[in-house]
Amino acid sequence: MDTKALHTISYGLYIITAKKGDRLNGQVANTVFQISSEPPTVAVSINKQNLTHEFIQAGRSFAVSVLAREAPLSLIGQFGFKSGHEVDKFAGLNYKLTQSGLPYLAEHTLAYLEAKVNQTVDAGTHSIFIGTLTDAAVLQQGEPMTYAYYHQVKRGTTPKTAPTFAVARVEAGPATTAPRYRCTICNYIYDPAQGDPEHGIAPGTPFEDLPGDWACPICGAGKEAFERI
Amino acid sequence: MDTKALHTISYGLYIITAKKGDRLNGQVANTVFQISSEPPTVAVSINKQNLTHEFIQAGRSFAVSVLAREAPLSLIGQFGFKSGHEVDKFAGLNYKLTQSGLPYLAEHTLAYLEAKVNQTVDAGTHSIFIGTLTDAAVLQQGEPMTYAYYHQVKRGTTPKTAPTFAVARVEAGPATTAPRYRCTICNYIYDPAQGDPEHGIAPGTPFEDLPGDWACPICGAGKEAFERI
Repeated sequence: MDTKALHTISYGLYIITAKKGDRLNGQVANTVFQISSEPPTVAVSINKQNLTHEFIQAGRSFAVSVLAREAPLSLIGQFGFKSGHEVDKFAGLNYKLTQSGLPYLAEHTLAYLEAKVNQTVDAGTHSIFIGTLTDAAVLQQGEPMTYAYYHQVKRGTTPKTAPTFAVARVEAGPATTAPRYRCTICNYIYDPAQGDPEHGIAPGTPFEDLPGDWACPICGAGKEAFERI
Repeated sequence: MDTKALHTISYGLYIITAKKGDRLNGQVANTVFQISSEPPTVAVSINKQNLTHEFIQAGRSFAVSVLAREAPLSLIGQFGFKSGHEVDKFAGLNYKLTQSGLPYLAEHTLAYLEAKVNQTVDAGTHSIFIGTLTDAAVLQQGEPMTYAYYHQVKRGTTPKTAPTFAVARVEAGPATTAPRYRCTICNYIYDPAQGDPEHGIAPGTPFEDLPGDWACPICGAGKEAFERI
């Protein structure tokens, strides 16, 4: 059985938000899908370890921000690789509230959805929350960020708590003499042959020549968090 | 509430197959997703009216063929717009069997998955079948067919029983004097400005000039099934 077959399934990339009392939280998810059109029903799969899981259970509702293709890696890192147990993920972000007061991103977002949970399915490590649509709007036209685009073009990584997580394989890089470095926090690989376009680092820049304040484009960790591979 | 926001969710396109005794059936679905990685668990949403729903309930397993981007519209039409109640959908097709004897497409397919159902969730018009992966293989490298590509580039349509079905809006077509025609079986729109590349019909060909044996590229209906719009 070759589980790499699972990597051929297509997904988008979304920020799922919820609230518990006055507290807001959000996380990245790729498994959002419409379940029925009558009434409009959507579902999302969330890891039981995540704070967003606790908040959805408490608030019985969730919101979905559909990321645009041009969303920066740092935004995904903010929601995907930091825990709401430790940081306020909305600090400094441009967000608005849905009808029921759930946050959604006002930038880098094609549309938002809000659903009231009417069924929770226990799927082992994850729960599937199924909800009826209660609010929705299109915010801008454009291409959605897909999971494939995030991995292949933006070279993003996946946290361990994602349903689609697989142990990262160190693939043979393009021909270059400078070594690659891996972020020990989020597994992002700095490849000198590609540089870091989001931070204005040109292709061909060795890791050693990155500025001292350079940070991982996904999770924001400093150079000291990187190891040579 | 603007339900067009639902159209920003990303999906792939899949043929879901099942068997009941010796009978095989399959249908198109876009809502396939991985639910957990430990153990590998996948889910699919299927309309209760569909024969595949009955077969999955009977056989307690399903297989997924992940369509390649170059899969022809006629293949999707064969599985999406014809009912297994009336036709043998596998007649004349190149297919093979998974470990448990479920059919998967041997062509136009990137990978197949097979799952044993361990949970069925009632979601109104649809059931979500959740299953543990029991067989899987990658068949070829390539880009998957996505739902967006099918609609935007291949100009495909969606059957009424799909979770993402919305009543087709007749959009303003490109500037052309020749009228457009709609297939009353599957809602495919023949647009003279675009022609029908899969059948070698050049852009600029009016509907009236199509050969007498021309058939709908999706469902195979004849010219007489089309109405002017």
